[in-house]
Amino acid sequence: MTAQAAVALGVPVRLLAEGPEVSAAQVVPDTTVGDYRDLETLRSVAAGCAVVTFDHEHVPTEHLHALAAEGHPCRPGPEALVHAQDKAVMRARLDGLGVPSPRHRVVSDVAEVEDFAASVGGFPVVLKTTRGGYDGKGVWVVDGPEACGTAFSVASETGVAILAEEKVDFRFEISALVARSPSGQVAAYPVVESVQRDGICWEVTAPAPDLDPDLAVEAQRIAMRVAAELDVTGILAVEMFATGEPSTGSGRRGRVLVNELAMRPHNTGHWSMDGAVTGQFENHLRAVLDLPLGSPEARAPWTVMVNILGGEHGALSEDLYAGYPHVLARDPQLKVHLYGKDVKPGRKVGHVTAYGDDLDDVRERARHAAAWFRGDLGQESE
Amino acid sequence: MTAQAAVALGVPVRLLAEGPEVSAAQVVPDTTVGDYRDLETLRSVAAGCAVVTFDHEHVPTEHLHALAAEGHPCRPGPEALVHAQDKAVMRARLDGLGVPSPRHRVVSDVAEVEDFAASVGGFPVVLKTTRGGYDGKGVWVVDGPEACGTAFSVASETGVAILAEEKVDFRFEISALVARSPSGQVAAYPVVESVQRDGICWEVTAPAPDLDPDLAVEAQRIAMRVAAELDVTGILAVEMFATGEPSTGSGRRGRVLVNELAMRPHNTGHWSMDGAVTGQFENHLRAVLDLPLGSPEARAPWTVMVNILGGEHGALSEDLYAGYPHVLARDPQLKVHLYGKDVKPGRKVGHVTAYGDDLDDVRERARHAAAWFRGDLGQESE
Repeated sequence: MTAQAAVALGVPVRLLAEGPEVSAAQVVPDTTVGDYRDLETLRSVAAGCAVVTFDHEHVPTEHLHALAAEGHPCRPGPEALVHAQDKAVMRARLDGLGVPSPRHRVVSDVAEVEDFAASVGGFPVVLKTTRGGYDGKGVWVVDGPEACGTAFSVASETGVAILAEEKVDFRFEISALVARSPSGQVAAYPVVESVQRDGICWEVTAPAPDLDPDLAVEAQRIAMRVAAELDVTGILAVEMFATGEPSTGSGRRGRVLVNELAMRPHNTGHWSMDGAVTGQFENHLRAVLDLPLGSPEARAPWTVMVNILGGEHGALSEDLYAGYPHVLARDPQLKVHLYGKDVKPGRKVGHVTAYGDDLDDVRERARHAAAWFRGDLGQESE
Repeated sequence: MTAQAAVALGVPVRLLAEGPEVSAAQVVPDTTVGDYRDLETLRSVAAGCAVVTFDHEHVPTEHLHALAAEGHPCRPGPEALVHAQDKAVMRARLDGLGVPSPRHRVVSDVAEVEDFAASVGGFPVVLKTTRGGYDGKGVWVVDGPEACGTAFSVASETGVAILAEEKVDFRFEISALVARSPSGQVAAYPVVESVQRDGICWEVTAPAPDLDPDLAVEAQRIAMRVAAELDVTGILAVEMFATGEPSTGSGRRGRVLVNELAMRPHNTGHWSMDGAVTGQFENHLRAVLDLPLGSPEARAPWTVMVNILGGEHGALSEDLYAGYPHVLARDPQLKVHLYGKDVKPGRKVGHVTAYGDDLDDVRERARHAAAWFRGDLGQESE
């Protein structure tokens, strides 16, 4: 999707891909297939590029330092990106900034989890690997000490630490997305509501329909402050919990707590490709190139994006293309994005976006199309 | 730009390009560099493709017949495309359909031009090569018999015939764009006004601001009828003159006369990428794949597209990228498309699109940006 934005801007892209079959490699001519954990590979791909950027956070921090030291501008840079790579580093930094997070503690054994749980009102608590998790992997909600085994097995196998966090009783999850350029310009997208299932982003509504306007402003302020303090360049997505608790003394309904940071175009920003004046992929490119940012404003009152996950039912679960005749004929306003991936159950293989004046209508259209592509229409409870 | 739409739809594209440096070859991994006039090259590229389509009309008609006979669906097919390749064939067919055109005659010498001129009220008349012209090339406005030499020299050198047409005293030029699928579904875009300079498209306004609503409907009807009668698949652009003459008996102001046909995504449709629910490139792909078409409706009251032509003044005329900081900072709502072409005076190297509620504002923004990229801001009289 970055490639689409690069075509518009006339910006040449060179890609390092994990394999020839990955989505980006299918659409970027100048592709090197190689391992992003190998410094020599990174060096050879970076040679001659004006700027190095990322669509995931897993490039080793030390390699980014090496590239930066050798004169390759990495945007975001390693000092920023480490906060999206290591949740313990992120939590410590946000605490230092006074940005509200769920209560948390790095834990090294079950006894420490029990101790932490006691300090936050008891189980359940959330255990997370500090590095390497995504889409619900590396995250466990544990009901008691006997449920902590998996997390510590993974920790001892991989050598990463475990972070314990309070399980927040949130009303809904939101995401505040900003683009920030090296010069310090920031563009803040409308705050969206995201619905997760099994730790995977399922549906995003822009703007978040039930979010108190003051909380929306606070969420944007937090995202802008984090972007500036951490010197983020490119897109920063700040995923937050919006709670129903009254915040102390402010008179606002509820408060927001930072859950995760991502420093790249993010699933909660996909709505912007069709729903905002400037999509997140274009603003990511503009930001890392230190070009003036495009307007992040929405083009319609409501935009809903629903991910297409690989389904388990029927023919469409293997041949997404077969979903087109129905989906496109039913809704000529719908925007479909398929990623060219093999369909596997639960895998994100595309998304659909609908926009318009009536939220119920927009939601129904997007949900129907995604359910059809999944192949489980009628099995959807919504 | 077709590649961008193909990425969204997850449709793999194979490209036959004239050279490795052309715009499309820069962004399509599966590119063959070769000659579109060579049947063997066409065959090898078409092998394994579900459908063959075009971004220009110059593939020899007989090769398209050969490909079609060998089982490669060509969309548009050769029977349709010949009307966009050969102006004499097009004029004869439109006459047969009763579609209004400027008066015209195929001429083989100056005496026949004089005879034709006398029949339409005298010089000036327009001479055109029946094949191979574009962007003002192969078109001459002649003031008298002594000015016909160039056209007939070209005709004798290239072996193509010359078509004489009356010089229409039009109020403005319009374009009616439709997408049509093999099943016969048609999506008609709002009729736009296009401003030409030296035979090259300069500026497009959607919808055409001063076009009588009845004439707009007539223009769409003509485009839909031509698409159906000629069995066009994909995008058909019908460029027309809108005249100020009262049409006989109808009470409408003026009438429309067909000037040119194009069967491919067309410069007068570039506004739709950012200005319509479904851009022309996406609808071209949907149409040639016989998928349901997307809505062609405009997303804003006014959309203005201005081509960026290679300029002759200043540094920006060679380095378009240097135009970004000013253009993007001045107008965060602007959409810029650069084509990755070397800048030469008069060459189309990109376009800008602005949209909004106020036509004067939208126009000013698009014109300013294009003039800045051209490098002749301040020398623009508008």
